[in-house]
Amino acid sequence: MATLKIWLLLLFVATIDVALGHEKYVPIITNQIHLLRPQSGSGGSYVEGLSCLSWRLAVETNNLISWTQIPTSCVDYVGHYMLGSQYRQDSELVIEQALAHAKALNVSTDGTDIWVFDIDETALSNLPYYADTGFGSEPYNATKFNEWVETKAAPALPATLELYEALLNLGIKVVFITGRPESQRNVTSSNLKAVGYTTWEELVLKGSEYSGKTAVVYKSAQRKILENDGYRIVGNIGDQWSDLLGTNIGLRTFKLPDPMYYIG
Amino acid sequence: MATLKIWLLLLFVATIDVALGHEKYVPIITNQIHLLRPQSGSGGSYVEGLSCLSWRLAVETNNLISWTQIPTSCVDYVGHYMLGSQYRQDSELVIEQALAHAKALNVSTDGTDIWVFDIDETALSNLPYYADTGFGSEPYNATKFNEWVETKAAPALPATLELYEALLNLGIKVVFITGRPESQRNVTSSNLKAVGYTTWEELVLKGSEYSGKTAVVYKSAQRKILENDGYRIVGNIGDQWSDLLGTNIGLRTFKLPDPMYYIG
Repeated sequence: MATLKIWLLLLFVATIDVALGHEKYVPIITNQIHLLRPQSGSGGSYVEGLSCLSWRLAVETNNLISWTQIPTSCVDYVGHYMLGSQYRQDSELVIEQALAHAKALNVSTDGTDIWVFDIDETALSNLPYYADTGFGSEPYNATKFNEWVETKAAPALPATLELYEALLNLGIKVVFITGRPESQRNVTSSNLKAVGYTTWEELVLKGSEYSGKTAVVYKSAQRKILENDGYRIVGNIGDQWSDLLGTNIGLRTFKLPDPMYYIG
Repeated sequence: MATLKIWLLLLFVATIDVALGHEKYVPIITNQIHLLRPQSGSGGSYVEGLSCLSWRLAVETNNLISWTQIPTSCVDYVGHYMLGSQYRQDSELVIEQALAHAKALNVSTDGTDIWVFDIDETALSNLPYYADTGFGSEPYNATKFNEWVETKAAPALPATLELYEALLNLGIKVVFITGRPESQRNVTSSNLKAVGYTTWEELVLKGSEYSGKTAVVYKSAQRKILENDGYRIVGNIGDQWSDLLGTNIGLRTFKLPDPMYYIG
């Protein structure tokens, strides 16, 4: 864990750089983060029966659903993945595809083309919080997480910010749809603006009428409202499959990596 | 490439064992196949700009679509992945999830519960063919591939065969829906039976009426026919997202890995 803590420090330096400067991210750690024996724990002991590589792939492909915490034996693996260069590289390739899709669109001139962005682990990164709380291995603590949200300290995901800026230049408007509650509108808005998301067509937060409803139901309903209002959803990006499944999903969806938590 | 050829020989020994004996697969190569520098070519030279890890993740999450060949710089990476233990492990974890889902079902007693299986890279493995033709790096050659299909030599994917057997024991019937054409019905049926898929409710091959239609359109239509006939699709498994997207997808879908080709 000592190594992880050093990396964590490096991460903070990196994210502060990015958050303040909006500069293209240059990874500090350039070595591959996939350990030759990713099943190994911190002491190098072999954990039988679970390949963390397989686990992460199953998560990212929606084969593993409704899980509440990452496997204890994969904490170091997920930590290395998130803090190393692979997470950045994986995100950048997704964004490259999203950009290629956007550039190939025939954008309407009447300003009705929109791109839907999720917020947590899509527009904003809560990695500083998760790095401090076991990368998803601890039970979700709403109080603690909301305290973090209130700090408005979440950096932008560098690749997503690039996509955001390119879309605006292409004449595509941006709509954020987040599972964060209405009560976090001001902090969320401030945080978004502080890291470079300076404008949007709509910022949709989860109202009390969706209390107890799944993310798929809530987000589908909100996208339907947008389409009924005359918007065309030309793209849709999120880190959870619940951002991308359901109805009114848009012309194309893009799944960013997130091996730290699951929202159904 | 010399290393790959030795592995290829080992593969054939392994697949013959599995095909003949229907025994649980014991990987011969137990080391992790994720190279520390997976961007390296066979000579160890660094290929700028593409992480093959990121490329594969983007493929498996449907972020990269409509591609025709794997990147030249990732041939060795994909080869190592497919022939090493990781592909098997990844597949086994998917099957574990599918099995858990099946066991939690309240299976109907009237025999109307079915599970939809794709065939290529799901029930049957064409890995011997792809290992001999660059793991998806060569342009698709229909003549050559059809010659391979006619040999009826495709082994079962060991994990999928386990799922198949468990489903039958649970009272869930199996329907195969494949993109293979009607003209390959006999060879496909023989190949399936020879490797252990001895019975099925229906074997649906692509009729000429779907000529020019996408896999999503064809497979959705066939699943709809099944549901109209009174069947309930309790599970759906394939290696392509086009097996799992569209309409009438079933209670839950499972995506097996396939970094070798894309079918839209």
